[in-house]
Amino acid sequence: MQGAAIIILVVEDDQLIRDMVADALSDGGFEAEVAVSGEDAVILLQGDQIKYRALITDINLFGTLDGWQVGHRARELNPDIPVIYMTGAAADQWSAHGVPNSILLNKPFAPAQIVTAVSQLLNTGAPPA
Amino acid sequence: MQGAAIIILVVEDDQLIRDMVADALSDGGFEAEVAVSGEDAVILLQGDQIKYRALITDINLFGTLDGWQVGHRARELNPDIPVIYMTGAAADQWSAHGVPNSILLNKPFAPAQIVTAVSQLLNTGAPPA
Amino acid sequence: MQGAAIIILVVEDDQLIRDMVADALSDGGFEAEVAVSGEDAVILLQGDQIKYRALITDINLFGTLDGWQVGHRARELNPDIPVIYMTGAAADQWSAHGVPNSILLNKPFAPAQIVTAVSQLLNTGAPPA
Amino acid sequence: MQGAAIIILVVEDDQLIRDMVADALSDGGFEAEVAVSGEDAVILLQGDQIKYRALITDINLFGTLDGWQVGHRARELNPDIPVIYMTGAAADQWSAHGVPNSILLNKPFAPAQIVTAVSQLLNTGAPPA
Amino acid sequence: MQGAAIIILVVEDDQLIRDMVADALSDGGFEAEVAVSGEDAVILLQGDQIKYRALITDINLFGTLDGWQVGHRARELNPDIPVIYMTGAAADQWSAHGVPNSILLNKPFAPAQIVTAVSQLLNTGAPPA
Amino acid sequence: MQGAAIIILVVEDDQLIRDMVADALSDGGFEAEVAVSGEDAVILLQGDQIKYRALITDINLFGTLDGWQVGHRARELNPDIPVIYMTGAAADQWSAHGVPNSILLNKPFAPAQIVTAVSQLLNTGAPPA
Repeated sequence: MQGAAIIILVVEDDQLIRDMVADALSDGGFEAEVAVSGEDAVILLQGDQIKYRALITDINLFGTLDGWQVGHRARELNPDIPVIYMTGAAADQWSAHGVPNSILLNKPFAPAQIVTAVSQLLNTGAPPA
Repeated sequence: MQGAAIIILVVEDDQLIRDMVADALSDGGFEAEVAVSGEDAVILLQGDQIKYRALITDINLFGTLDGWQVGHRARELNPDIPVIYMTGAAADQWSAHGVPNSILLNKPFAPAQIVTAVSQLLNTGAPPA
Repeated sequence: MQGAAIIILVVEDDQLIRDMVADALSDGGFEAEVAVSGEDAVILLQGDQIKYRALITDINLFGTLDGWQVGHRARELNPDIPVIYMTGAAADQWSAHGVPNSILLNKPFAPAQIVTAVSQLLNTGAPPA
Repeated sequence: MQGAAIIILVVEDDQLIRDMVADALSDGGFEAEVAVSGEDAVILLQGDQIKYRALITDINLFGTLDGWQVGHRARELNPDIPVIYMTGAAADQWSAHGVPNSILLNKPFAPAQIVTAVSQLLNTGAPPA
Repeated sequence: MQGAAIIILVVEDDQLIRDMVADALSDGGFEAEVAVSGEDAVILLQGDQIKYRALITDINLFGTLDGWQVGHRARELNPDIPVIYMTGAAADQWSAHGVPNSILLNKPFAPAQIVTAVSQLLNTGAPPA
Repeated sequence: MQGAAIIILVVEDDQLIRDMVADALSDGGFEAEVAVSGEDAVILLQGDQIKYRALITDINLFGTLDGWQVGHRARELNPDIPVIYMTGAAADQWSAHGVPNSILLNKPFAPAQIVTAVSQLLNTGAPPA
């Protein structure tokens, strides 16, 4: 049942938060693939090796791309991918720069919020994209 | 507090998935009662010994009844029972054969998705049926 | 990361349920602050030491205030605070006495329902209040 | 088809707005019954001659009762009645004093908003209360 | 702009209601195509001349097929078609026999409810089926 | 009651559709202000003379700005403004380029859909932005 893993792409440059999110996902039965920059995230999303079931991204990232741009790119590649943003300072930009049907988690958040957010967006009744 | 158990009926003929679902429910504080066919499920639903708080059913089952039919029967007996379908191949039939306010989980899914799905449907604000 | 705790106010005079809720929240990564009466809860909500991220309250409480009144007071102080009611007998009053966008948990409920309810209400996409 | 009228109770002491709301409802195929105070509204709601299908109420009313109290009373008498509030100044109190699943219309509003609000709340899929 | 008509299939054997619904739709800018039995409705849905944008159906129909069956058939042919049921007596069967994301209108209903119901289901943000 | 007008900004370069939308809004009791390009729309949104209660925009516009960009700019200026997109060909881009809580109307659409869409987004219970 190798192919049965539900792989979530996590984009976060803060190692503490990245590990907390990855651990929470793992406890919920998901598998986290991590990227430390928006550029790395886009390369992974564009690759054809892994089909990510959801994207979880920080907003303020090192490099040129911010999390809003990663979200737009993820949806261009897969219009149905669930998108979750994590931010402490940029929450008020979500209304203008988030994608439809996304969830914003205000930092600090609890591990359970990550797992519930991913599950809520996956549990919609629609067939897989 | 014997009467306090929140019992969920799980209908699945694949033992690996059945055990995974039962374990996930148990970790979330629910109690799973399992049936391996639609016929068995309907007998349990019609019985007056246990009031199930939710139904989780596979679609393609051994025997005459499929999961869509079990869902219809469960709602005839209890119009408010939460219904969750699990399927790998029949997701595109949900729109025509699922019941209102049900959730479809596409296989493979993570244990957390089961627990969140049951909790979402139970946490609606309405009094118990 | 002292300031990172997500503190939830739990109002419940039954110690068994209070401990179950506190444990469930702790497992989900939240921190529970408990009050055993509506009066105590209102004092805590009015204080300026802790900003509670959500309120979870029983309905039938010792003292003058019931859970509906605690909910109204919490929203007067913070219009965006998530509110969750727990009740065995008063569920049919929610429609008349609950606050908008609140969740009612019918007793008995499973620990996972508490964690999902808090997470659902926090995961709305809006900036923190 | 005498009994087929869909009668909506409208509570508003400003005649201009009351007429606008009544006209909008009439254009949409509803029938408005008007009350000019909260006290009159409660008497009508408690009577057994007419079963109102929805309540539309101003907040600041002449007399002792405000619109929030009329809403609570309407739901005590009929837990499923749709409730719509109209207000210019008291919108920020809705979160604390509105009932669950109600709609708040900020004055000024267009006639179409009234008709859509009533229809949205009636079109829920549930059997009539 | 011949192709621009938004055609809704209305299945109703009571002429008074059928005309009321058709008139309401026409006032809202839709075009109603009417069928007086479930059998006729299914023939129209299966035809390739018209792509219906929504189905509005009575439940108790002359002939073999009831409205629940017409709803199932419509969704088998077009998984995204909005479905609206109209009924006086069969509302309590919706939970068991309705399709997901459908709306139930309890008779009697106002013309505005029909127009709002169709618009709500069409205004979802998704691309056309 | 001069200040009571509910003014909606409509951005559309096709005069037939622009007039249809403006007429539908007027029939619903709204007032339409029209712009024929994204650049004109942004100038109006940035002005301080009129507070628009909603934005309705075509996607493919003459000039440099498309409707997605107008939507982003409108939300930067007013995070709570309701946004409605109208498109025939670009619907599949909504998931990547639309703003959260917006509505997409697929052309052709009926006048009632416009009025319902604006009303749905305005009727949220929240205080005015």
